[in-house]
Amino acid sequence: MTAQPSAPRRGRGRPPRATASADAPATRDRILAAAREVFAERGYEKASVRGIAKAADVDPALVHHYFGTKEQVFESAVEGAFAPVLRSRPFAEARPGRVGEQFARMFLGVWENPATRAPLLAIVRSAVSNEAAAAIFRRLVTGLVLSRVAEELDGPDAQLRAELAAAQVVGLVMLRYVIKVEPAASADPEDLIARLAPVLQHHLTGGHLPADG
Amino acid sequence: MTAQPSAPRRGRGRPPRATASADAPATRDRILAAAREVFAERGYEKASVRGIAKAADVDPALVHHYFGTKEQVFESAVEGAFAPVLRSRPFAEARPGRVGEQFARMFLGVWENPATRAPLLAIVRSAVSNEAAAAIFRRLVTGLVLSRVAEELDGPDAQLRAELAAAQVVGLVMLRYVIKVEPAASADPEDLIARLAPVLQHHLTGGHLPADG
Repeated sequence: MTAQPSAPRRGRGRPPRATASADAPATRDRILAAAREVFAERGYEKASVRGIAKAADVDPALVHHYFGTKEQVFESAVEGAFAPVLRSRPFAEARPGRVGEQFARMFLGVWENPATRAPLLAIVRSAVSNEAAAAIFRRLVTGLVLSRVAEELDGPDAQLRAELAAAQVVGLVMLRYVIKVEPAASADPEDLIARLAPVLQHHLTGGHLPADG
Repeated sequence: MTAQPSAPRRGRGRPPRATASADAPATRDRILAAAREVFAERGYEKASVRGIAKAADVDPALVHHYFGTKEQVFESAVEGAFAPVLRSRPFAEARPGRVGEQFARMFLGVWENPATRAPLLAIVRSAVSNEAAAAIFRRLVTGLVLSRVAEELDGPDAQLRAELAAAQVVGLVMLRYVIKVEPAASADPEDLIARLAPVLQHHLTGGHLPADG
């Protein structure tokens, strides 16, 4: 991580196709959207700042200007993909005893929506196959998502319990959306929510698992 | 899958470094071990029969002779990696009410052992990043592992319940061994087994052993 974000290239070379001054938030979003597509298509290792710039139709210097290195572009893309999860407040919104259901609903909602599924799939694929991408994923998931959940739990093992709940959901993501194992891949989302809810409730709050009669 | 296994190349070319007649089971095992290493190092897409043959110090024709195409080598490597799981009989071996614990112990055992973890990690990485590898993984996991577990369960949703139990374990594998999120990555295996056991028991038996039902 030695490269620093640099100002857009100026001077007599090929003029930038877009400049930092031109509608900055829109340009930034366009670069991020392009980055998610490029990471999804090529994977982390083969993706390059140049390729991302090309897909966003901007000068590579502008990508460096907004984000810095490839690692930093990836980190911003991951953060953006987690934004819907971070905006939701499952504990605050859940009725008592329904935290597990609320969590299951939130995660399935994010993954059932193709607009949020695509970037998340790209991130999972990159993190599984590349150590640098895994490190970024690890830092963000621990820092942004799991710590935030663990904060709301009691006890010294809150972080581990949050991770075991996350593991249940991550595993379902793998089987349903990545490996596409049947019948999990085609199961009704409401059926899955009903099956996951007591398990997530158990992990998160120590609630007893129901003994089905 | 159009290529057929072919006989080892003969004739006036470079002589094979090993032939099919020479201690066949040992040669076959050496090729499989080399294949797992090559798939682990290079990933499914970049791995080649030629590269696997080189790592095993045999002629590529011998790899084709024993296994056929790259897809078929991968399939055999996956089957071999699952062998310890397939040899175990968690339902038969578990005390009543301890099926969940037995499953947790079996899976953690396979993944805690570096000799079995390495090929499994290679397979997971390949299956996540490549569709052809995912298809092979899907077929084997469903056919060999999950159907076998579901057979021992009662009810029309046995396969889905087996998959939700698998999801809990697969997710933990992702967080602990692939992404290496703390504290899950360093947690004591016995602690994890104790935490997973009731959840797996719930998924697999709905809180009761099939015999109790």
